[in-house]
Amino acid sequence: MTDTLASWNDGEARRAILSFVERATSPGDGYIETADRIAVFDNDGTMWIEQPLPVQLDFIFRALARAAQDDTTLADQDPYRAVLTKDLAFFTAVSQQQPEAIRALEEALARTWLGQTPAEFEAQVATYLNDVTSERFGVPYPQLVYRPMLELFALLEAHDFRVFVCSGGGRDFMRVIAESAWGIPRERVIGTAPSYTYEDGVIRRGGTLLGGLALGPGKPEHIFAYAGRMPAFAGGNADVDIEMLESATFALLVVHDDADREFAYTSAAEKSVAAAQKNGWTLVSVKDDWNTVF
Amino acid sequence: MTDTLASWNDGEARRAILSFVERATSPGDGYIETADRIAVFDNDGTMWIEQPLPVQLDFIFRALARAAQDDTTLADQDPYRAVLTKDLAFFTAVSQQQPEAIRALEEALARTWLGQTPAEFEAQVATYLNDVTSERFGVPYPQLVYRPMLELFALLEAHDFRVFVCSGGGRDFMRVIAESAWGIPRERVIGTAPSYTYEDGVIRRGGTLLGGLALGPGKPEHIFAYAGRMPAFAGGNADVDIEMLESATFALLVVHDDADREFAYTSAAEKSVAAAQKNGWTLVSVKDDWNTVF
Repeated sequence: MTDTLASWNDGEARRAILSFVERATSPGDGYIETADRIAVFDNDGTMWIEQPLPVQLDFIFRALARAAQDDTTLADQDPYRAVLTKDLAFFTAVSQQQPEAIRALEEALARTWLGQTPAEFEAQVATYLNDVTSERFGVPYPQLVYRPMLELFALLEAHDFRVFVCSGGGRDFMRVIAESAWGIPRERVIGTAPSYTYEDGVIRRGGTLLGGLALGPGKPEHIFAYAGRMPAFAGGNADVDIEMLESATFALLVVHDDADREFAYTSAAEKSVAAAQKNGWTLVSVKDDWNTVF
Repeated sequence: MTDTLASWNDGEARRAILSFVERATSPGDGYIETADRIAVFDNDGTMWIEQPLPVQLDFIFRALARAAQDDTTLADQDPYRAVLTKDLAFFTAVSQQQPEAIRALEEALARTWLGQTPAEFEAQVATYLNDVTSERFGVPYPQLVYRPMLELFALLEAHDFRVFVCSGGGRDFMRVIAESAWGIPRERVIGTAPSYTYEDGVIRRGGTLLGGLALGPGKPEHIFAYAGRMPAFAGGNADVDIEMLESATFALLVVHDDADREFAYTSAAEKSVAAAQKNGWTLVSVKDDWNTVF
């Protein structure tokens, strides 16, 4: 670790973060008890790149495509059909949290790894993370973690915040990489998660999702379940993060506006920028606020 | 904190614990990576007294009795009927994990606090913990925490174990007291838990339990969900802890055999003592192994 927030330019975002942390940890107005210092961050697009597809969605799509190849009766059902035909409308419907699309995706997710042990699933994730490379950067995704966020986590931890990740993506996918990539222990990884059954000494994936997708209102629901508190600090970058950001004392929204060093896009983040302006959340411009991205 | 395990007599149990912790944290055979140092303990009967009733069961019974008074149509249905008539057969069926009894209890638990905010529920728990006293000792239950277990938690934490509690009782009940009574932060409290819904900025209790009761196989299932790993160290005292103890590298079973200083009973712990002997778990006799109980 270098200096405090060294990859952040001196600007409104950096100053707002430092000022919040200072007030939260100093006696007086805005002080936050140590026990309440929960910080929660979205994963894709907040902690590492999410273009052309969120990493976990890419992992899931490959698994769904394989499943449809193995069982051709699936090929004309969503989400398999949408994956095979690259029909974005279905996934737009998911990101808009349309109930039918969400249900179809939930069922497919629950079914795909049914009966597998954690070791079996983790081996697939590890292979994916080693072998698959970013189209744009030509390196595996674990090398495309945002350095400014690592510095932010270090700052928060130095002030006795416990840093969690809360992703709409799979909890158990992230747990394979969270410790090595972001220094976040498995028990602080929150996300969409299957049931498990324990029998004859072995844990295996069950056939349902527990608590639904960790998207939109599902984020604070999952955060409360795991952390037992609403967050003091939250960071996200998309419309599905709005409720999580609302539930926090201090909220930060990453805006992807740097086509030269990363990507520039606003899709699935239109409402969140408006919500940030309305609620006084701190906007973080990749272009202006970060002097180093990776 | 005084000396290491000062309330423990020098005997097999104390020596087995110290030897395990030494091996787990020293290079060589039996070494456990820091990330894998998860320790999990049952709550009632392992961390504080559970007679004449587990504390959380007493809290629940009072709530069910009030509900049946408010809605007399409930009075002839289990578990309300069993509570009002003090019919132990129903609760024996629960501790034996009979499906029909479990389902009836789950439904009642989910229904009782439906729609309440965490603050509303926590206020009820805090009142209970302040006002209700142990029949035998005449003090509130938070004063009846086992001191030897606090020393064990301190020893484990000093060796970089993260200490969790996993109870068949209510996760959100324990979270009110876990930090002050045992030094266990809310995010390390695992237990039977309701769904929550987030709407208009407010978290409220939903109408279902997520993942079922954390009893028997439900314990390792819940532990995996929260901690992301099977435990390196586990402690319990009852038949419903067997699967959790099986899932751990080192397991400890508290045997309540001290009628003078606490209670002597074997009910609901018959099978666990046999399992301990068969599997080589460490038996902890309250009478012989603890020189101080509270």
